[in-house]
Amino acid sequence: MSELKNVTVIKKANVYFDGKVTSRAVLFEDGTKKTLGVMLAGDYEFNTDAAEIMEMLGGEMTVLIAGETEWKTYQEGTSFKVPANSSFRLKVPVLADYCCSYVK
Amino acid sequence: MSELKNVTVIKKANVYFDGKVTSRAVLFEDGTKKTLGVMLAGDYEFNTDAAEIMEMLGGEMTVLIAGETEWKTYQEGTSFKVPANSSFRLKVPVLADYCCSYVK
Repeated sequence: MSELKNVTVIKKANVYFDGKVTSRAVLFEDGTKKTLGVMLAGDYEFNTDAAEIMEMLGGEMTVLIAGETEWKTYQEGTSFKVPANSSFRLKVPVLADYCCSYVK
Repeated sequence: MSELKNVTVIKKANVYFDGKVTSRAVLFEDGTKKTLGVMLAGDYEFNTDAAEIMEMLGGEMTVLIAGETEWKTYQEGTSFKVPANSSFRLKVPVLADYCCSYVK
């Protein structure tokens, strides 16, 4: 699905790491939320509240989920899940375009 | 208006200037389009096809529209219009969060 239909978009961007990571929230009628974001080259760490499904829309990132020992690389067309109340480390070599779904 | 309601969002980002400028397209039921974007620090030039209204959602940019002689600075809550089939130069000191409306 290349489009998100019948949604509400929060206009103002979320800005992290001096703008090297930015995203915008998309709200669905059923109360669920996704964010569409871009990460520029860098190393990052994020915490989760809800579980997250990260879908790669472009570029790539290499990811280590808390409690795991293996870094895994994800490219356009792939996705990975991060548990609730956890964290994950990311290495972005160039740019990563992603869609993050928050799982209830 | 802090939200865009009943819209379709194209998931994949538009990436310009090595990712220093990124945006996503938002489509309205009436056939109009906006983009929500972030520009990191830098100097940029863009051409217009349709006229554009640039609304500042955060940060600031200093703008020179083709044919004008004065650079003008716009901050959160302000906006400016660029004519159709024109161009504009931008200087972003830190970060600019914007909503661009394409005027038919």
